[in-house]
Amino acid sequence: MPAGEPSENSDAGSVRPFDAEEFRRQGRLVVDWIADYWTSLPARAVLPDVEPGEIAARLPAAAPETPQTLHDVIADLDRLIVPALTHWQHPGFFAYFPANASAPAILGEALSAGLGIQGMLWTTSPAASELEAVVVDWLRQLLGLPERFARGGAGGGMIQDSASSGLLCCLVAARERVADARTPVVYGSADAHSSVVKGARIAGFPAAAIRRIATDEAGRMRVDMLAAAMEEDVAAGRSPCFVVATVGTTARGAVDPVEAIGKVARRHGAWLHVDAAWAGTAAICPEFRGTVTDGAELADSWGTNPHKSMLVNFDCHCLWIASRHALESALTTKPEYLRTAAGDSGAVVDYSDWQVPLGRRFRALKLWMVLRMIGARALRARVRDHVAWTAEFAALVAADAAFEILSPPSLSLVTFALRAGDGATAELLSRVNRVGPVFLSHARVGNRYAIRLAVGGTLTGRADVLEAWKTIAGAAGSTGA
Amino acid sequence: MPAGEPSENSDAGSVRPFDAEEFRRQGRLVVDWIADYWTSLPARAVLPDVEPGEIAARLPAAAPETPQTLHDVIADLDRLIVPALTHWQHPGFFAYFPANASAPAILGEALSAGLGIQGMLWTTSPAASELEAVVVDWLRQLLGLPERFARGGAGGGMIQDSASSGLLCCLVAARERVADARTPVVYGSADAHSSVVKGARIAGFPAAAIRRIATDEAGRMRVDMLAAAMEEDVAAGRSPCFVVATVGTTARGAVDPVEAIGKVARRHGAWLHVDAAWAGTAAICPEFRGTVTDGAELADSWGTNPHKSMLVNFDCHCLWIASRHALESALTTKPEYLRTAAGDSGAVVDYSDWQVPLGRRFRALKLWMVLRMIGARALRARVRDHVAWTAEFAALVAADAAFEILSPPSLSLVTFALRAGDGATAELLSRVNRVGPVFLSHARVGNRYAIRLAVGGTLTGRADVLEAWKTIAGAAGSTGA
Repeated sequence: MPAGEPSENSDAGSVRPFDAEEFRRQGRLVVDWIADYWTSLPARAVLPDVEPGEIAARLPAAAPETPQTLHDVIADLDRLIVPALTHWQHPGFFAYFPANASAPAILGEALSAGLGIQGMLWTTSPAASELEAVVVDWLRQLLGLPERFARGGAGGGMIQDSASSGLLCCLVAARERVADARTPVVYGSADAHSSVVKGARIAGFPAAAIRRIATDEAGRMRVDMLAAAMEEDVAAGRSPCFVVATVGTTARGAVDPVEAIGKVARRHGAWLHVDAAWAGTAAICPEFRGTVTDGAELADSWGTNPHKSMLVNFDCHCLWIASRHALESALTTKPEYLRTAAGDSGAVVDYSDWQVPLGRRFRALKLWMVLRMIGARALRARVRDHVAWTAEFAALVAADAAFEILSPPSLSLVTFALRAGDGATAELLSRVNRVGPVFLSHARVGNRYAIRLAVGGTLTGRADVLEAWKTIAGAAGSTGA
Repeated sequence: MPAGEPSENSDAGSVRPFDAEEFRRQGRLVVDWIADYWTSLPARAVLPDVEPGEIAARLPAAAPETPQTLHDVIADLDRLIVPALTHWQHPGFFAYFPANASAPAILGEALSAGLGIQGMLWTTSPAASELEAVVVDWLRQLLGLPERFARGGAGGGMIQDSASSGLLCCLVAARERVADARTPVVYGSADAHSSVVKGARIAGFPAAAIRRIATDEAGRMRVDMLAAAMEEDVAAGRSPCFVVATVGTTARGAVDPVEAIGKVARRHGAWLHVDAAWAGTAAICPEFRGTVTDGAELADSWGTNPHKSMLVNFDCHCLWIASRHALESALTTKPEYLRTAAGDSGAVVDYSDWQVPLGRRFRALKLWMVLRMIGARALRARVRDHVAWTAEFAALVAADAAFEILSPPSLSLVTFALRAGDGATAELLSRVNRVGPVFLSHARVGNRYAIRLAVGGTLTGRADVLEAWKTIAGAAGSTGA
């Protein structure tokens, strides 16, 4: 390529991409803005009132040629952007699952961006790789997960962006492990997360090789049906490859019988992946451990999201694997320019060999800071509060004759409906989200349209949960008393 | 699951995960820490002096039960972590490609974490989706990319974490588009990025269906060889599916003849993906556009990384596609709980249908802030400076009899070696990185061991580039004059 002429542009020289003194001033402004935003949350609606295309139409059609100020940006943030956001940190956010943040997590993310390192290889930032291995192992211990996932053994743990990406990597490892002439088959319950089908599709499994196993009346995978499906596949010359057991389904929080599933999977040499994306972190409380981590010693991989209810802002998915070798065999591609002495020695983990992307942010910082600045005891107390408040909410719903519980509380998730039927329930949800300030979402539970209440927001307190019930009951014309 | 008892823990109540006043104080500390860190960079070594396992061994084996302070964390950051990082923002970082950050980007990342929204669907934060579509279109215009990638048409643009992930999504879309009984085949040059083979492997392409097409003496894909390979595959009953044209190879910055490749791809109905991960953003300068965006009108997808040389901190990969439909057909999995009125209407983009993960950070903020607070003119001036300094460096290398240029400057990348051979060159690189304060990496160029100099760091100035040459020449025993 031709070399360009050195810049003759006199304006450009005055733009310094990082000026320390200016950054101190601008940073203070941003910190205060964030503090003000969180303070403002309770008084806001959770959902914005905005039409498709409305925001895009109000933004300039092209980038500016010359620099604008942080004040310009903040003004547009206040005027245009924030009023058109869905406020996930609002105390009245009960939709989907929480993606809760906290001061230590936000500060950790800022520090990570400020350091600007990229930990694709151990060599490209040794402390980033090692801190990640250590803090993910801290979490493993807090959850009571088995030694097979421990740091420094045949397996280990890491942080990925999401449960979907983690599952995909494990699925690819499983597929490569059993590679033979037979068609490999993937299994998950009918209520397993959409990432199972998506991951299998990405990994090249045809629709005919993805089995969605029926669930029982409580939404749990039917192990007898799984066993039958695997036997049928084997008889037909196919190869059972990868089974996803879900600990806490999205719709209703059902927990598959992991140990029984694991035994069936082992019988056929299939990889067992436990998707505990939402429910997993509850195992930091010993009293929930039996349900949540049951059967983990049979799992080849086990994943959970501290970015859901554990105060680490999105994204932070923790994934443990029993065999580094299986993952690395499938995902390592080391061209000459990525080879390093440390990597070649085998003495270190190059985490890019455990994931889809090559590059890596320093996500361990925020997990480290949350675990240290909040502490395990307070994290446990929060889980217990959420579970207790959800039970209290469910009791109020159950006591109202107009309503029925569709699935009893599973940890901090409950689903319910109007006895008047799906249409009335859907209309109620729409009305509730409109009058606010709450946001709940829906799901199908046993072929019924269900309203879901998922508790776990950072600012959400008992009073917010009780107030949500009053809003719902009021909108339904019940007393809410 | 059983409901837990409400917390009896008196300590836990005192831990507030977000206290606005405390956040203001803590945030100032973090902002100042980042400013101090950037100020300290020139005086640091780029590479740490640390052995595998050393940092892990110095960290506690388990998480704390009770809260520690931000001061505790910062103390450990200073004492343990930072001395064991590779400093990507150091002015002497010339390795790999830059992952450069800037004040607006760091502030944007902090704001994104502070807002804590999750934009998987339009409904889950309308302004996040629309701002992303708009700012990515701003960049499209700055780069001179064709209308087929414009916002609001059949295609569009988005932000992903990395070029690897973007490529994978396009590859899956291509595979699904041509799904028939024939074996689909993937093509890239022998010098294409490792993410081509990795993506193909993840997507289930067997090794035998991944063609690495030979390059010419300048490292560019041989179009005649591509055409021959495709014809051979068709004759054998296979289906040419996906071709990656690289604009700026990692090893030496070679630019494949995209237009000629595109014509061959079209002839066989194959998807053309342009991987301009590093070189792409140079097209903001009209004088580099001919080389960089040539043939883009034949591409089905085109990706570049503002997180390399455009001052947006990692991660920020911009991907444009010609057909939303192709991507969404391959990647959409909408269970009931992810269905929304807006999504069902087809009037909006639910960006999770364009990527592997379900969840999404609000990355558009940082790209928006860089484009606004730096401005297009200053971004162009930076590219021109980097190109000019690289040319100047290359001229110094070429004038030294002990050295030879292995590949002439391509934009801001040049490779060179000692005439004394591979062993001497590898040893020189090792010595240079040890004496510092610079960090350069290596690659294979025409089967020679090459030292690569990639210019583009945020703090890197002309003097740093010239100083790097003095260090290299000095370590080689040349004068460096």
